[in-house]
Amino acid sequence: MKQIGYYNGTWGELDEMKIPMNDRVCFFGDGVYDATASRNYKIFALEEHLDRFYSSASLLRIEIGMEREELKKLLCDLTEQMDTGDNFVYWQATRGTGPRGHAFLEDGKPANLWVTIVPKVFCDVYEKIRLITVEDTRFLHCNIKTLNLIPSVMASQKAKEAGCFEAVFHRNGRVTECAHSNVHILKDGVFRTAPTDNLILPGVARHHLIMACERLGIPVSEEPFSLEELFDADEVLTSSASTFCLAAYEIDGKPVGGKDPATLRRLQDEVVREFHEETRAD
Amino acid sequence: MKQIGYYNGTWGELDEMKIPMNDRVCFFGDGVYDATASRNYKIFALEEHLDRFYSSASLLRIEIGMEREELKKLLCDLTEQMDTGDNFVYWQATRGTGPRGHAFLEDGKPANLWVTIVPKVFCDVYEKIRLITVEDTRFLHCNIKTLNLIPSVMASQKAKEAGCFEAVFHRNGRVTECAHSNVHILKDGVFRTAPTDNLILPGVARHHLIMACERLGIPVSEEPFSLEELFDADEVLTSSASTFCLAAYEIDGKPVGGKDPATLRRLQDEVVREFHEETRAD
Repeated sequence: MKQIGYYNGTWGELDEMKIPMNDRVCFFGDGVYDATASRNYKIFALEEHLDRFYSSASLLRIEIGMEREELKKLLCDLTEQMDTGDNFVYWQATRGTGPRGHAFLEDGKPANLWVTIVPKVFCDVYEKIRLITVEDTRFLHCNIKTLNLIPSVMASQKAKEAGCFEAVFHRNGRVTECAHSNVHILKDGVFRTAPTDNLILPGVARHHLIMACERLGIPVSEEPFSLEELFDADEVLTSSASTFCLAAYEIDGKPVGGKDPATLRRLQDEVVREFHEETRAD
Repeated sequence: MKQIGYYNGTWGELDEMKIPMNDRVCFFGDGVYDATASRNYKIFALEEHLDRFYSSASLLRIEIGMEREELKKLLCDLTEQMDTGDNFVYWQATRGTGPRGHAFLEDGKPANLWVTIVPKVFCDVYEKIRLITVEDTRFLHCNIKTLNLIPSVMASQKAKEAGCFEAVFHRNGRVTECAHSNVHILKDGVFRTAPTDNLILPGVARHHLIMACERLGIPVSEEPFSLEELFDADEVLTSSASTFCLAAYEIDGKPVGGKDPATLRRLQDEVVREFHEETRAD
C-alpha cells in the first residue's frame, strides 16, 4: 500500500480512512503518540519508542488496550504491507469515544489505537540547516509526547516562513528543545544537551546521540544551557526520530557552529552507522 | 434529531458521524472552538461567541472559510433541527486535512468547519458547588479557545474524583481560572475577576457578569487576586457558557464564601433574568 491508516482494527489507505467525530482527540487533543523510521521494512529503535509510548500514556492515565508485544507485531505487520520499506511509522492512542466532557469517560473501554505509515527516505544528515529562535510558551508537560501541539505548529510555520528547518525554543534564557526535535551543542569537545525534565521530550534520537558519544569517548553534559551558549557553541545539532543528527550553520540569520567539524562528523557517522546496521536488509 | 454532528456541509446524528483521519485535529489538536447554550431554540449571546471564535482563529492564523452571517445562520438552522430547544451548541474549526507535518498545509483550502449540538438543560445556578485547586501548568495562550485541552482534562478528572465540580488553576500564587470556567470573588462588596491577559480565556459569561454588576451598581475590579484572597473571599463564583454563575461553599475541603449572600443572589438573579429574557419563546 502507498500509505496506511489503522484505527481500532480497521485499516486501509490513509487518505480514505475516517474516525468517529466523538473521538476525544477531536475536542481535546486527548492522546499521546510516538513515531520512528523504518528502513528495509525494519523499524528502528522500536523497543525504546514503545517504552516511551506506554510511559506517555501512563503519565496521562490513558489505558492502552493492547499488550506491548501485540502492538509491536501490529506495527511490524502493517509496515510489511507498504510498497516501500523506508517509512515514517507513527502510532497514537486517544482517550476513547463518547459525549464531549472534560473528565474521563466511564465506559470501561481502553484507548483508541491509531497507526499511520507513510513513505519517508532517511534524510541526508550531512546537509546543514538554518534555525530560528522562538520563545517557549508551551505547557509544562513537554516530557509527555501528547497531541497538544499547537505551539509547535506555530513555531514550525514561523521557521518555514523564515526559510529555516526548525525553531529552537527558549524559556527564561534557557534553551529547551526545538518544535519537533531536541537540540544540543558541542563546546570544547563536550556534547551538551538539556536535562530530561518537564521542559523537553526525552528524545530517543537524543539518547542514541548520548550513547554514540559514550562509544566515541566524547564527554556528555546534561546541564541546561543558555541562548548565549547556543550562539557561542562550536557546533549546534538537532535530533529527531526522522532526522537523527543535523548541524546548523545559522540561527536567526547569524552564523553559528562550524568550529568543531571533526567531532561533529564522528558523531554523525556513528549514528548513521548504527541506523544502517540495525536496519540492514536480511 | 437527538444530537447533531456537522462537518464541512455533511451532517447527521452525532454518534454516527465520521471525519477524515488526516484532519489536523487528529495529530496536533490544531483548531479552535466556541460554544454556548440555546433555550427555546434561541442561541444565547451568539454574536459575542462568534466574535471570540473568529478572534481565536485569527490569533492562530486559521482561515474560517465561512462568512460570519452564514455561520450564524448555519448554527441557528441546525439548532432548529433538534428535538428540543434547550441545547449545548458547539462549533470548531480545524486547520485542514492533509499529510501530517507541523507547518501549515499549502493546499489553499480554508479550515474544516464542525458543529455539534446536544441537549442540555440550563443548570440550577442556585445550587452550591465544591472546588479543588490545581497548579496551572498550561501553555501561555489561554486567551485562545483552542483544542489543546489536556491539562484541563486532567484537572477536571481530578476535581471529579474529589467529588468537586471544578478545578481552580493557580500560577505563582495567582488565581487564573478554572479548567472550563472563569472564577471570581466578591470581597467587601466588590466583584473581583482576573484581567483578560494570556493566562485566562475572556469568558462571555464573565463579561455578562461584569455587565450585570454595572447594571446593579456593584463595583468591579479586574486586578489579579491570589489563592489566599480566594479562600478569604466573601463569595467565590465560577462562570461558563453552560453554568453562568455558580457559587462555591468549599475549596480543597475548606469552607469558603457564604459571607455576602445578598450580593451573590442579586448577581445570580440578574444573569438568569437576562438569559431568560434573551431566550424567551416567541
